[in-house]
Amino acid sequence: MLVKVFVTPRRDILDPQGRAVEQSLKSLGFKNVSDVRIGKYVTLNVEASSPEQARAEAARMCEQLLANPVIEDYRFEVENS
Amino acid sequence: MLVKVFVTPRRDILDPQGRAVEQSLKSLGFKNVSDVRIGKYVTLNVEASSPEQARAEAARMCEQLLANPVIEDYRFEVENS
Repeated sequence: MLVKVFVTPRRDILDPQGRAVEQSLKSLGFKNVSDVRIGKYVTLNVEASSPEQARAEAARMCEQLLANPVIEDYRFEVENS
Repeated sequence: MLVKVFVTPRRDILDPQGRAVEQSLKSLGFKNVSDVRIGKYVTLNVEASSPEQARAEAARMCEQLLANPVIEDYRFEVENS
């Protein structure tokens, strides 16, 4: 099953990479851009017998490795593939 | 308008970060994981008069800065917000 994981910096956490990209976009002429946040987009395949099992594994992977829950939020989607 | 951009390494391009994460997941006990790919997930706000205008701007931002079309693919979604 295909798992898509979206990891984003938490709202209340400074995102220096997002700031830098926002400045770059503005200097390229995109003046109407704001609130740029940079996160990670992880895709992976899990051999699982059911979507529920894949979801449970994905949640554990996020907690243990893919996201840092102190400074990042995550969500994921599971697709039969 | 809220723009969500998904940038992924192209299929035919090696993804060393994905490889490293896959190895780490396996050593954590997730033996049934494969094909891990790590991309970027960028969210931003665009002041635009229509979704079409926001989409056109987002495409230009991706081409010019957010993605490297030589080694990365991108797609994006525009939401009224």
